[in-house]
Amino acid sequence: MNSPVEFRRAAVEPQFLEALRQRFGDRAQTGEAVCRLHGSSESHFAPALPDAVVFATSTQDVVDLVILCAANEVPVVPFGAGTSMEGNALPVCGGVSLDLSRMNAILAVNAEDFDCTVEAGVCREELNQFLRDTGLFFPIDPGANATIGGMASTRASGTNAVRYGTMRDAVLALTVVTAQGEVIRTARRARKSAAGYDLSRLYVGSEGTLGIITEVTLRLHPIPEAISAAVCGFATLQGAVDTVVQSIQLGIPMARVEILDDMQIRAVNRWSKLELPEVTTLFFEFHGSTASVADQAEMVSGVARENGGGNFEWATTAEERSRLWKARHEAYYAAVNLRHGAIGWATDVCVPISALPACITETKADLATASVPATILGHVGDGNFHVIFSIDPTNPKEMEEVEAINARLVARALSMDGTCTGEHGVGLGKQEWLKQELGEPAIEVMRRVKHALDPHTILNPGKIFAL
Amino acid sequence: MNSPVEFRRAAVEPQFLEALRQRFGDRAQTGEAVCRLHGSSESHFAPALPDAVVFATSTQDVVDLVILCAANEVPVVPFGAGTSMEGNALPVCGGVSLDLSRMNAILAVNAEDFDCTVEAGVCREELNQFLRDTGLFFPIDPGANATIGGMASTRASGTNAVRYGTMRDAVLALTVVTAQGEVIRTARRARKSAAGYDLSRLYVGSEGTLGIITEVTLRLHPIPEAISAAVCGFATLQGAVDTVVQSIQLGIPMARVEILDDMQIRAVNRWSKLELPEVTTLFFEFHGSTASVADQAEMVSGVARENGGGNFEWATTAEERSRLWKARHEAYYAAVNLRHGAIGWATDVCVPISALPACITETKADLATASVPATILGHVGDGNFHVIFSIDPTNPKEMEEVEAINARLVARALSMDGTCTGEHGVGLGKQEWLKQELGEPAIEVMRRVKHALDPHTILNPGKIFAL
Repeated sequence: MNSPVEFRRAAVEPQFLEALRQRFGDRAQTGEAVCRLHGSSESHFAPALPDAVVFATSTQDVVDLVILCAANEVPVVPFGAGTSMEGNALPVCGGVSLDLSRMNAILAVNAEDFDCTVEAGVCREELNQFLRDTGLFFPIDPGANATIGGMASTRASGTNAVRYGTMRDAVLALTVVTAQGEVIRTARRARKSAAGYDLSRLYVGSEGTLGIITEVTLRLHPIPEAISAAVCGFATLQGAVDTVVQSIQLGIPMARVEILDDMQIRAVNRWSKLELPEVTTLFFEFHGSTASVADQAEMVSGVARENGGGNFEWATTAEERSRLWKARHEAYYAAVNLRHGAIGWATDVCVPISALPACITETKADLATASVPATILGHVGDGNFHVIFSIDPTNPKEMEEVEAINARLVARALSMDGTCTGEHGVGLGKQEWLKQELGEPAIEVMRRVKHALDPHTILNPGKIFAL
Repeated sequence: MNSPVEFRRAAVEPQFLEALRQRFGDRAQTGEAVCRLHGSSESHFAPALPDAVVFATSTQDVVDLVILCAANEVPVVPFGAGTSMEGNALPVCGGVSLDLSRMNAILAVNAEDFDCTVEAGVCREELNQFLRDTGLFFPIDPGANATIGGMASTRASGTNAVRYGTMRDAVLALTVVTAQGEVIRTARRARKSAAGYDLSRLYVGSEGTLGIITEVTLRLHPIPEAISAAVCGFATLQGAVDTVVQSIQLGIPMARVEILDDMQIRAVNRWSKLELPEVTTLFFEFHGSTASVADQAEMVSGVARENGGGNFEWATTAEERSRLWKARHEAYYAAVNLRHGAIGWATDVCVPISALPACITETKADLATASVPATILGHVGDGNFHVIFSIDPTNPKEMEEVEAINARLVARALSMDGTCTGEHGVGLGKQEWLKQELGEPAIEVMRRVKHALDPHTILNPGKIFAL
């Protein structure tokens, strides 16, 4: 139902598992519980259990594992924090789930160059805690406390992308283990380079299908002199979206601008114990000098007023601000938990900003007849928004209904020159849509690259496209 | 001497040339003059003439030419404005030079989405002229009036990159003709996407070796409310570079910051009839609101004063500003023409910003003993600078001397975690350095991609790496 094809499970011999134990000791595990943990996702995909889980602690571990897997034609599927949304890390063909979460060293911070190098298993919140005293921060924020390696693999973005870009922009260089077990460094630390093919960007977003990222060099940004956050409720969804589009078109450099529709606010109020008015609401954050922040806020609140927005409610202290953004970060869980025991399904279209008002209002109208609770939540400054469905996993009719709504939503976005996935990646869920988005000849280019770099298809098989 | 290997010229049969004439009429040419024009570069590389030149006027022309070339195993080498610096468009194996300059239509401007789509042969100055009434501009400025397709192919950047990024950032989507003669569109117009491998970034910087770019969708930026430009002379080279590094580290969002050393100013004064004091000089440009521009300028001039800078000389009118930047844009020609009949050689290292003062002052010291006129010119906000040599082409000793200086310069940059090419690409001149920069296993990844996408090696053979 939720997999595009039936996957063939690789044959994993007892000798292979024995070889894993010999090389990795108790860092190679085959227990039911650990396999189940690495074979489940935070979304609606059926579990797919690995034959073993290996916890790497070094790039050399990854090299040795890849060589062992290659020799035995066993799949190897990188796993970070397990927070991806399209089943990107599910070992659908079995094999080894390569858990990189113990590779969590921060290797270097070059404050004067605004960059740092971390192991792939470092989580973004820990990185920002570590950086606090340097006056710098790492802006990419997909909501979940994902690993940097996972965020690079899925080309993650999130709330700050409207100002600071996505992982595509944040990655300066990568250390990658190839399917041949070679270790490569994709670039040096210079801010720009024209030195051959852009290998960093080739691996960013490749979801572990072309190589395994073990270290990431990231661009950092100075913590702004002033940060201020506000929420603003709107009489209509259209008014909220128009506020965003007009503010973007005025060139106001908002650091964050998030939409939460009335249903999403209701979910957030319940989950995070807030008392926001249950109407479509924009969450803003402004970064800059004190003067510039005041300037931006004044301009945006003027635009909001013209579009039926209420007063800006300011979160002036760091505590209020983090309470607000914590609620925003938990919005996915809040939405899923509108029903007890439900599972989540998040859509992920992104359209040119001028098409956003039509796309989002048509989608809201489509949701009006849905039998499943559904919220709208989005990084609207980028033209990217999610519908989050709260599905009863025991009711297959609900899954069908949601599939149909999602199909209409993606078709709508594609008709507006948008994409089926702004930030979650293709994984298992967007493979059919990717074909419609880019066409078979473009997929064939991707397939050629995949075959060239991973000729025996051991790296995260079954993802992005059928081979 | 200036080619890494001896290239084997493809056999081009008279029947093939006849087929070209049949398909393209007088847009297929084999005359000596047109072949010489397409077989020369603006730099120090020996001419390498194509067997024919085809002027394409549509993507279908490119498809038909590629299919014809593939069937006959004849190289096809895309050519734009002929302004690349590393021999990137020289047909070193013969074959067809595919001139895209007649594909110069601006296909769409979506002002409300800040993007436009153009044919590959549109030049950046013409694009900006066209955009003027929309309130938007295309910021990437490599100096020469290059074509957008050529700029995408070499991952160009230039004076504005410190603020607006490079072609990597500017390209939203491409239309590409593959070696199989398929037409693909690499992405939709959404501002971000996680839809599979980043094909746009794969082709940007691939120098025509993986496919032929025929259309480019570009991000645009609002013309700032205020623009101001200034020059400032310095007592020492070190003081000028320290000013840049400290301003960057303060997070001041300069739109342009260019260094011209004393020799370069002398060349510019002579070539562009200016009377600047002949000392190391920074050219600045500030973009933003009137208040922000004044703010930025005050902060930077404070930093400059602390580092031995003189007064800021402001170019307040648009005319003065364009006179100043015209002189900057002609700096390469000014440097080359320090001697009559000389040819140019521009180096292109880029280092982490903290390493820039050491890199540039050590380089200046190395130049002190050079027998060849040499200037320093650079996009120092990115850590990128060029040495421009003015070489007597009849004196092979000079070429050797310059090669040795360049070798020391690149080794210096690599030892500082920098790159051998910040923006010119690899072409013919940086192939050996690319190996040292990224290592053989990384080149092997590039080679696998090349073989996968262009199995018969018809697309710009001989560039970036040996096959």
